[in-house]
Amino acid sequence: MSIQHVIAELTTLLGQRVSRSKSDLDIHGQSETHFPLTPPDVVVYPENTEEVSRIVKICANHRCPLIGWGIGSSLEGQAQALHGGVCVDFTRMNKIISIHQADMDVVLQPGVTREALNDELRATGLFFPVDPGANATLGGMASTRASGTTTVRYGSMRHNVLALEVVTANGDIIRTGSRARKSSSGYDLTGLFVGAEGTLGLITELTLRLQGQPEAIASAVCAFRDISGAVAAVIDTIQMGLPMARIELMDTSSVIAVNAYSGSDLAETPHLLLEFHGSEAGVAEQSQTFGEIAAEHGGSGFEWATKSEDRNALWAMRHNAYHAIKAARPGVRAVVTDVCVPISNLAEVITETCLDLERSGIDAPLVGHVGDGNFHTSLMFGDDAELEAILAASHRMVKRALAYGGTATGEHGVGQGKLRYMQEEHGAAWGVMGLIKQALDPDNIMNPGKLVPPRN
Amino acid sequence: MSIQHVIAELTTLLGQRVSRSKSDLDIHGQSETHFPLTPPDVVVYPENTEEVSRIVKICANHRCPLIGWGIGSSLEGQAQALHGGVCVDFTRMNKIISIHQADMDVVLQPGVTREALNDELRATGLFFPVDPGANATLGGMASTRASGTTTVRYGSMRHNVLALEVVTANGDIIRTGSRARKSSSGYDLTGLFVGAEGTLGLITELTLRLQGQPEAIASAVCAFRDISGAVAAVIDTIQMGLPMARIELMDTSSVIAVNAYSGSDLAETPHLLLEFHGSEAGVAEQSQTFGEIAAEHGGSGFEWATKSEDRNALWAMRHNAYHAIKAARPGVRAVVTDVCVPISNLAEVITETCLDLERSGIDAPLVGHVGDGNFHTSLMFGDDAELEAILAASHRMVKRALAYGGTATGEHGVGQGKLRYMQEEHGAAWGVMGLIKQALDPDNIMNPGKLVPPRN
Repeated sequence: MSIQHVIAELTTLLGQRVSRSKSDLDIHGQSETHFPLTPPDVVVYPENTEEVSRIVKICANHRCPLIGWGIGSSLEGQAQALHGGVCVDFTRMNKIISIHQADMDVVLQPGVTREALNDELRATGLFFPVDPGANATLGGMASTRASGTTTVRYGSMRHNVLALEVVTANGDIIRTGSRARKSSSGYDLTGLFVGAEGTLGLITELTLRLQGQPEAIASAVCAFRDISGAVAAVIDTIQMGLPMARIELMDTSSVIAVNAYSGSDLAETPHLLLEFHGSEAGVAEQSQTFGEIAAEHGGSGFEWATKSEDRNALWAMRHNAYHAIKAARPGVRAVVTDVCVPISNLAEVITETCLDLERSGIDAPLVGHVGDGNFHTSLMFGDDAELEAILAASHRMVKRALAYGGTATGEHGVGQGKLRYMQEEHGAAWGVMGLIKQALDPDNIMNPGKLVPPRN
Repeated sequence: MSIQHVIAELTTLLGQRVSRSKSDLDIHGQSETHFPLTPPDVVVYPENTEEVSRIVKICANHRCPLIGWGIGSSLEGQAQALHGGVCVDFTRMNKIISIHQADMDVVLQPGVTREALNDELRATGLFFPVDPGANATLGGMASTRASGTTTVRYGSMRHNVLALEVVTANGDIIRTGSRARKSSSGYDLTGLFVGAEGTLGLITELTLRLQGQPEAIASAVCAFRDISGAVAAVIDTIQMGLPMARIELMDTSSVIAVNAYSGSDLAETPHLLLEFHGSEAGVAEQSQTFGEIAAEHGGSGFEWATKSEDRNALWAMRHNAYHAIKAARPGVRAVVTDVCVPISNLAEVITETCLDLERSGIDAPLVGHVGDGNFHTSLMFGDDAELEAILAASHRMVKRALAYGGTATGEHGVGQGKLRYMQEEHGAAWGVMGLIKQALDPDNIMNPGKLVPPRN
């Protein structure tokens, strides 16, 4: 490829919205984790789908790599430009196009963040439930198949994206579905592009399913003597079919970190963080049932938050756990693990993991979407020796999850960190992913070097 | 291809489990609707995945078409052998392999029917919710992305299949996921094979998500003065976020038919059929709230069924509506339509549809999963002239649904009847489906002639 020709043509198309400043390239070459800086050759800021299509056509013509960029909050280096090329920053495509209150859906551009969307929805009585920790863009969340604390009730991006508009590798603009609630009309292309990490095309518009704001919401924290008691309570709760809106675990180490960071005063012991959605009577009933289950497993010391500001403070504390944990050791960086296993294996996997980390002398706070069988540890490192040790621990964690019938990544995606496990996790199915990539992106220009087997 | 060589090799592999009897070929060449008999050249009855893989390898070697067969209940002629070849009947692969109560999932072979599964689950406190009218096989339901009366609450096959084992077009055996509740590890191949109608591979094992049997269940019927009142009640109910387990519409003509067929004595006016799942208190509260909404839209005459046998009778009546409608005109056959639109357009689309049918002199009972925006009319025909008239009406219905932002098929699939609408519904995205098909089945042996654009 000739990057100079690409840049010249992009500049003709976009004028000032083409950037080659070092600071801009560096920002778009960073990641949230340990991967080295890998800046693109150029960053572009399209304002509409037609421009994205023309950008892709220019790149296709020169076989130049294209990488989509939301807000840079992905945790596996998904948006880093491993082979240089053009970074397509969706910051300026941040319009909410239409809210359909009766249909409980919204059509929007990929640069809208989840918090901006929910601010806009507040007056409508609707909300969008998927909440990874970061205030990510919805295009990025779709591309990594994100989930979060409410997935146990409302599902992940896989369940909440109704349809997409996508610019494919040849610059075509396609629509993968309609606003109908369901369809049996052909291959599920929506599902294929959700989680494809930009390797098959660039998402330029999303139709998302919304939920009604519940009549009543109650949040709570509940202390447990040990992690296994907390996990047992979660398993019983899920099996009883209690429709938990959120059921999150924080281990003692995380509790200490968030107390210091958020000014809370939780007892220094594992906690579950809970939320109940429903009618007034329903929430009361769910809360009581959960209280009984928790008590059986050593849960105590409930603290309730029913006022909106108290609930917001509670979940801000949870969402800031990552920052709290990093703040506890200034200057360090973190690798966040993300395994997910069948829930019946969860207690065993967490126990083995904690033992392993203890033996390895690694202090790694643990938080988890335990209702889904998914948990994270924040493995901190200050230097290369520590990095090597924690990557070895992360490796053992993935091997353990796979041995227990789970997955290397519940919600953070493949990116650079999990590529090495794709063969082991998927076997021949990884080859099928490669065939799909080859068919839809024969010149390998869409986020090359990610997700699928390397081309020979 | 040389079908004689294929048959010889299959006979060596399967012995007596290869059938060429005329009756067997005819059974496997039929459909539930108006498509002419198109028998395969041979029917095989594998007993395990390894045999399916070897069957596919034999066919791949001779470029011989392969069509999967569950129980033959699909409504668009999906399993008819348009180009002859080998029909793979999964009747003998009907084992439930393992039920994981703690994880609320089940692993089973594709020939298990939904009723057989729920019989087996009864003692566990779990159930599988997806319920198309027919007692279909779960492999067939996955292949057509089936849904049914409970989809408004529990989702379709898209949401309830966790993972698949698939034999691909070259005979490879792949797994598309694990029993973990969620994963961001690569392309969503599970979603791709669900709804692919056997054009990308043959499903040989399914991992399905299960639900807890609710503590309390109440079913009811409620009469409305007119369809628009019933639909308005549904829209309000969904928007209020009432977690309906089922909310089904039957028009007057359907009510008359089911009264005659099932011995019920519903008033001859449109009805909603409802079901509430939850705790005792929750069900009581939901029922009351729904009652208030219904009253605002002219709903009256609630009849409740809380005992299990009464509820079963109510839903058997609903599921037998198709047979009831056909029984009302002995000797006729029916084309069942299946459009689905955004719910805000539903009342208008139903009104226009009824007017159109009336003007055309077509008596077409209407039932619908109206909570999803999906409804069916049974267009009956006794001769070729009637067939032509009802196909024209069906065509107008699809065009109307597409004009209102919907889909040609909410749950019955593409098969032969909806292939002609794929270009209009999907545009360039249909071409992307064709690229995927070409990549995964380059010799076009998996259910050829279906779903994707014809090869040049």
